[in-house]
Amino acid sequence: MSAPPGGRLRREDALERDRTDPLASFRDRFELPEGLIYLDGNSLGPPSVGMRARIESLLADEWGRDLVASWNRHGWFRLPERLGARIAPLLGAGEDEVIAADSVSLNLFKLLAALLRRPGSRGVVLAEATNFPTDLYMAEGLVGLLRESGAELRIVPPGDFEAALGPEVAVATLTQVDFRTGRKHDLRRLTAAARGAEIPIVWDLSHSAGAFPLHLNDDGVEFAVGCGYKYLNGGPGAPGFLYVARHLQQSLDSPLSGWMGHRSPFEFETRYRPADGMRRFLSGTPGILSMVALEEGLRTFEGVDLAALQAKSEALGDLLLGLAGERLGEFGVEAASPRDARERGSQVSLRHPDGYPVMQALIARGVVGDFREPDLLRFGFAPLYVRYADVWDAVESLREVLVREEHREPRFRDRNPVT
Amino acid sequence: MSAPPGGRLRREDALERDRTDPLASFRDRFELPEGLIYLDGNSLGPPSVGMRARIESLLADEWGRDLVASWNRHGWFRLPERLGARIAPLLGAGEDEVIAADSVSLNLFKLLAALLRRPGSRGVVLAEATNFPTDLYMAEGLVGLLRESGAELRIVPPGDFEAALGPEVAVATLTQVDFRTGRKHDLRRLTAAARGAEIPIVWDLSHSAGAFPLHLNDDGVEFAVGCGYKYLNGGPGAPGFLYVARHLQQSLDSPLSGWMGHRSPFEFETRYRPADGMRRFLSGTPGILSMVALEEGLRTFEGVDLAALQAKSEALGDLLLGLAGERLGEFGVEAASPRDARERGSQVSLRHPDGYPVMQALIARGVVGDFREPDLLRFGFAPLYVRYADVWDAVESLREVLVREEHREPRFRDRNPVT
Repeated sequence: MSAPPGGRLRREDALERDRTDPLASFRDRFELPEGLIYLDGNSLGPPSVGMRARIESLLADEWGRDLVASWNRHGWFRLPERLGARIAPLLGAGEDEVIAADSVSLNLFKLLAALLRRPGSRGVVLAEATNFPTDLYMAEGLVGLLRESGAELRIVPPGDFEAALGPEVAVATLTQVDFRTGRKHDLRRLTAAARGAEIPIVWDLSHSAGAFPLHLNDDGVEFAVGCGYKYLNGGPGAPGFLYVARHLQQSLDSPLSGWMGHRSPFEFETRYRPADGMRRFLSGTPGILSMVALEEGLRTFEGVDLAALQAKSEALGDLLLGLAGERLGEFGVEAASPRDARERGSQVSLRHPDGYPVMQALIARGVVGDFREPDLLRFGFAPLYVRYADVWDAVESLREVLVREEHREPRFRDRNPVT
Repeated sequence: MSAPPGGRLRREDALERDRTDPLASFRDRFELPEGLIYLDGNSLGPPSVGMRARIESLLADEWGRDLVASWNRHGWFRLPERLGARIAPLLGAGEDEVIAADSVSLNLFKLLAALLRRPGSRGVVLAEATNFPTDLYMAEGLVGLLRESGAELRIVPPGDFEAALGPEVAVATLTQVDFRTGRKHDLRRLTAAARGAEIPIVWDLSHSAGAFPLHLNDDGVEFAVGCGYKYLNGGPGAPGFLYVARHLQQSLDSPLSGWMGHRSPFEFETRYRPADGMRRFLSGTPGILSMVALEEGLRTFEGVDLAALQAKSEALGDLLLGLAGERLGEFGVEAASPRDARERGSQVSLRHPDGYPVMQALIARGVVGDFREPDLLRFGFAPLYVRYADVWDAVESLREVLVREEHREPRFRDRNPVT
C-alpha cells in the first residue's frame, strides 16, 4: 500500500486493504480482547478460539478419565512428531524432518553439541552478536563444558560473519531475524557460504516460523531450531522445535539423551540407543498440556496460503514504516528496521530516546508492542490476525502519545522485570 | 494392619482403617473416575478438583486477556521459584533451595555436568544399575560429550555402590526408590558414605517426593532432582525440580545456561551471567500451562500431616503384601518388594510369569497398576487418595483374574508402546 501520488496514506486505504485481504477471515480463529491492538505476537501469540475447549477436553476426557492410559489411547506419546508434521509445511521441510521438544535454548544446545562432537571436529562455535541472547548463552555453556577440549565461542559483529568462516570453526549459528531491528538474514546465501567452507550452520527461526514461509529444503538448510509461542500461537512457553535434514539425522547424537529419545524407552535398558529419525532429539518427558496447546495453536494455520502470508507480512511492515515516516518523524521517531521488506522479518522497530515510557503509554492506550533496550519500540505483525487498520490506528495512537506527551507521566517510567 | 491372631485380613478391617484414616478427606481433592481403583499415581497422578477451573482461568483471564503482560501481572516469571517453595516442605528443604524447571532428565544433566566440571575434578560419574534408566542415559550423554577430557560413566550393581566410591569418582548419582521393586535407599547413610569419600552425590527423588516425607537438610543431602507428574500430581509431563543446598548454589554453573537463568535476562547481554540462587539452574522459557498445572497439583498437599503420609504409605504397602501372601501365592504370585516398609518406597511390585497379560486383565476390571519387564505387576500408593479398601479390592480383583484365567484372553497379549 503505497501512498497515492502526492497524497498521504489514509485510514480508508487501510480499511479497503482489509476488505480485500485474502487472510482476513483467519482473524476469526483467535480470541483477541475487544478493542486491543495486539502487535506483540512476535513475543507471545494469542489463544485460538478452540484452545479452551481443547484443553478442557485434555483435562477431562484424557488426563482425568483415562489417566496414564492416555499415553497410548490419546496419542500423547506421538505428540512430538505430530506437532513436527504440522510445523514442517511452514518451514518448507518434510514431515519427518521436524519434531517439537523442550525449548529453543535446549534444542540449540543439542544440535551445537552434536555437531561440535563429531569425530575430528575443530573447536570454535561461531556466532553473531545479533543472535538471540539465549542462543549465545547456551553456546557459552557448551564451550565452557568442553573447555578442556579446546572448545571456544567466537561472537562476531554481523558484518564479519562470512569472513570468520575459517578452518578452525566447527559449527556456526545464526538467528535469522534480529529480535531488535527485524533485520532478516538471507538463509540461502549464508547457508551456502557456511557449507562452502564445510561448516554446518544451525539457524534459529524463532522469529521466522509462522510469520512468513520458509524453504529450508530448497535453500539447502540442514539444521534449525525455533519457537512455539510466538507466531505459532502455542501458548506461553510452548515447546520449541528442531529441524534436521533427513539424510543427516542418523549421523547426529544428542548429548541430552533422555529416555524419550531412546529407541525402546519402555525396555528400560541400561544403555542408551538413539531412536531413528528425529525422535533421537527428544530428552525427558514432554509437558503434555503445553504440547497439546501448541498443537491447537498450529491449527490456526490450516489452509493458509503461504504466499499470502508472505505478502501481508511485508505489506504490514511497509505500511507502518510509511506511516511512521509521514506522521512521527517530527517527534524524533526514526526507523530502526530495514526499509526493504525482503531484508526484514515480520516486525518493525522504531527508535525514540524515551522508548520505554513511550511504549508504556502506548500500551495504556490499548496498543500492545514492546520495548527493547536501549530505545526500541518494537511492533510485530502476525499476518493471521493483524489488520491494516490496526497498523494505522497504532501509529495514530503513538502520535497522540507524543503530541500530548503522555509518556512523561511518572507511572510510565517504572520498569517491570519482563516487558 | 496386621491380620488378627490366627485370622485372615478381612475387607471390613480395611474399611474400618479408612474410617479412621487422618488423610481420608484428602481424597476429595481429586477428580478420580467413579469406580476406578487407581494404583498408578507413581506413574501419573490424577487431576485435582480445582485443576480445570485453574487452567480455564489461566487461558481466559491470563493468556487470553492480558496476553504478554501476564508475565508480570500474573507472576509467570516467578513460577519456577513459587513452585519450588511449595515443593520444599515435602523435601525437608528451605524454600530457596528448590526450583521447578524442565524435566528430571535435564535437571540431572545440569547438576552432574556442573559437578563434573569443577576445577580439578576427577573423571568418573558413578551410577547404579537400578537408577531410573533416563538418568543413566543422561549421564551417558554427558560423558560422551566429555570423552576427550577422560570422562567416564561407571554403572555398578547396587551391592557394589559403596565400594566403588573411589578417588577417581567425580560425582555419584542414585535413584532413591527402585522403579521396578520399590526398594528404597537410605538417603542419610549413602549420602554420608559419598561425602565421606569427598564425592558429591545427586539423588533422583522422582518416586519419593510426595509419596513420603523427605528430610534433605537433616540428612545432609546436597543435590537432588525429582519429578512433578507422579506423586506431586502436576499433570502429564509436568516440570521436574532441582534441589541444591543453599551454601553450594553459588559454586555451581549449569552448562544449560539459557536466558531464564541469567541474572538480567531482559538486559539481553551478549555474555551469560548466572542469577543468584536457584534461578541459575533455569534454561529456556518454561511451559506456563504445565507450570501452572503443577502449582495447582501441589495444592493437594496443603495442610497435609507428613507423619500421617509416611504411616499411610507404609501401611498400604504392608496391606498389599499381606493380602498377596495370603490370597495370591497359590497362583504363582511372589513379592518383589522389600517386606520391611522402611526399606520400601510407596510402591509394591509382585511377580508373575504372565505379568503383562495379567496386568492388562486387571486394568480391564478397573484396577490400574502397571507392568514392568520382565514379570512385574507394579502398584503405587499415593496416600492422599488411595484407600485401604482399594488395596483389598485390587487384590480380590487380581485373584479373580487368576482364578478365571482371564489373562489368557488373546486381547490382553498385545503390547502397547507405553504402559
